[in-house]
Amino acid sequence: MEHAVFQKLRTAMAEDGFDALVAHSLDNVTYTAGFQVPSQAMNRFRRTITILADKTFARQIVVNVEEALAHEKSRFSNIRSYNQFTDHPSDLIADALTEAGVAAGRIAIELDYLPAMDFLRLQEKLPNATFVHARDLYFRTRMVKTDEEVELLREIGALTEQVMADVVDQLKVGMSEQTVGSAIMNRMLDVGADGVAYQVGSGARSGIINCKPTPKIIEADDVVRVEILGDMGGYRSNVTRTMVMGRPTDEQKQIWSVLIAARDACEAKLRPGQTVPDLWETYRSYCTGHGIQPSLTFLGHGIGRTIHEEPYLTETREIVLQPNVTHTMEPLYMVPGRMGFHVEDMYRITETGFEKITGLTFPNDSLIEVAA
Amino acid sequence: MEHAVFQKLRTAMAEDGFDALVAHSLDNVTYTAGFQVPSQAMNRFRRTITILADKTFARQIVVNVEEALAHEKSRFSNIRSYNQFTDHPSDLIADALTEAGVAAGRIAIELDYLPAMDFLRLQEKLPNATFVHARDLYFRTRMVKTDEEVELLREIGALTEQVMADVVDQLKVGMSEQTVGSAIMNRMLDVGADGVAYQVGSGARSGIINCKPTPKIIEADDVVRVEILGDMGGYRSNVTRTMVMGRPTDEQKQIWSVLIAARDACEAKLRPGQTVPDLWETYRSYCTGHGIQPSLTFLGHGIGRTIHEEPYLTETREIVLQPNVTHTMEPLYMVPGRMGFHVEDMYRITETGFEKITGLTFPNDSLIEVAA
Repeated sequence: MEHAVFQKLRTAMAEDGFDALVAHSLDNVTYTAGFQVPSQAMNRFRRTITILADKTFARQIVVNVEEALAHEKSRFSNIRSYNQFTDHPSDLIADALTEAGVAAGRIAIELDYLPAMDFLRLQEKLPNATFVHARDLYFRTRMVKTDEEVELLREIGALTEQVMADVVDQLKVGMSEQTVGSAIMNRMLDVGADGVAYQVGSGARSGIINCKPTPKIIEADDVVRVEILGDMGGYRSNVTRTMVMGRPTDEQKQIWSVLIAARDACEAKLRPGQTVPDLWETYRSYCTGHGIQPSLTFLGHGIGRTIHEEPYLTETREIVLQPNVTHTMEPLYMVPGRMGFHVEDMYRITETGFEKITGLTFPNDSLIEVAA
Repeated sequence: MEHAVFQKLRTAMAEDGFDALVAHSLDNVTYTAGFQVPSQAMNRFRRTITILADKTFARQIVVNVEEALAHEKSRFSNIRSYNQFTDHPSDLIADALTEAGVAAGRIAIELDYLPAMDFLRLQEKLPNATFVHARDLYFRTRMVKTDEEVELLREIGALTEQVMADVVDQLKVGMSEQTVGSAIMNRMLDVGADGVAYQVGSGARSGIINCKPTPKIIEADDVVRVEILGDMGGYRSNVTRTMVMGRPTDEQKQIWSVLIAARDACEAKLRPGQTVPDLWETYRSYCTGHGIQPSLTFLGHGIGRTIHEEPYLTETREIVLQPNVTHTMEPLYMVPGRMGFHVEDMYRITETGFEKITGLTFPNDSLIEVAA
């Protein structure tokens, strides 16, 4: 039997009336094949392609130097390779679609990623094919995780929350933001992450949305915002906590209590059948009704092979939650030039409600007070 | 007066008879604008575009959330932005080219990067334009660095060589490859790098080309191969050293002396006017004449905004060296399943010969012996 991801994609193809599905982008190729060709992210001249066609046809196309690795690691057993300097990868796509009997079919392909040159070549080789944009099909399919994907998200999520707890435990007045950043990186790699990104902002810098750590020293009474984004086995984590170096002021406690109550109101609605715009409106109206204007136009985002994917929890996404959708919620409020507050955890929609993927062992329901 | 990079690109445009030059790829947009829009690397739906047209027109197009930053950091003062969800960036390109008076002109554009969807839209908006592939123009222009770029390469090169010396100084039997990797990462960030990649292979693993560090413990008599790739201010470094944990064997010394002599024969030819295929042949023939078959089909590669760029020092590149070309040379020989030898340094071609960018403070002319 084919892998669950192939089955899901074939179901979506049937729903949309496609004869073939071709992926070129790093995220969709990696999702389909179950492994990342190492040089695809680094070298844009090395196209990596996956093709599902008809009922059973499945082939991956890779640059020849990656062929041995693909045979070892890919979900595809049917693998063809090309020479980067003398062959054109589009010719191998045309051959595959012809062999699969869909040369005159409806082909879903990533028109917002496929380079123009490759598209022109493919049109020339397959003049009777109809090419249709594949973006929505992949978004929709990837949004609902397989059990295997959920397990990977639980694993990297738990490790990330543990590292956050360890790093906050070491946090002291007098450390630089960069020192905190290095501690995050080292601990994440220690626990087995393949990669990590992070943000550390203290004092007024906690109020900058993308706060790359600087040499700034953390001082008494600073608000400190730490975000960790992990990567393990191709799946991502995203956890954020906010600390105060000392005792929070009444203003800080008030802001925090609104953010947490808004999040709790949303958690109470997390279940299959809930619509995304209503969830966003629950969050937005609670915050504004309590004197706070949310600093982002979304409450959270899908998470999986990429940090940001569907469903974006925002007004414009007419999406209905269903079991095995995974996403974050990240209430965030910035007081410009003074301080910023932000808590982010990962969730999974279950058959009846939701599972917290993070927020279990080191929650942030009250502002975390660090002895100054 | 326009920035040196704009001047170089306009000269190349005139040589090739183009009325406009449009870039979409991360490397070429960043090269042109002098700064990287943060989300361009992470979010493929946020197109970032640079346009030079006619004699004086210059405009950058960014997603609206990046507009303020672009105004602060870009070389372009003429900046337009679009809404990612409601606008089409190709429409802004069409407007710019029309405004510049070249709507019916010869437009150089990255057809191997530009998404098919954007290309179709652009063709529809500008039916009288002729679109020509911009790849060679950018390769050729970027190959010869400005003085400002050379200075950035010297800076990150020197820091990387220093970090290599520090890390080798700490190297001991009993450490894991991963511990060495962490030391590289921490030291590189300490000295001010924005990013770093590295490879560490010991024992038989030194004979794997891409040797990501593992928990393997470094043992007495292991050959250890360490490669560091730095990133600072958008410019890259690449330095590799080979160590022996103890005393090298006669076989190891013999292999090393061939690699170094082959490299020295190539250094003796590094000057303006030298052709790349002849340089490659000098290397190849010296190695094979002394019993060694090079393990790569190139001797080195251009280095600048990207780790691998032109000139690739290989048989097929009909390129003549000229002043301010920067590149690496990296003799490499693998004894499959047993050990690998590799030395890599950065060079700049000068008016009369060459400058070593690295290989100055911690050279590797003899195998580096580490007390076991």
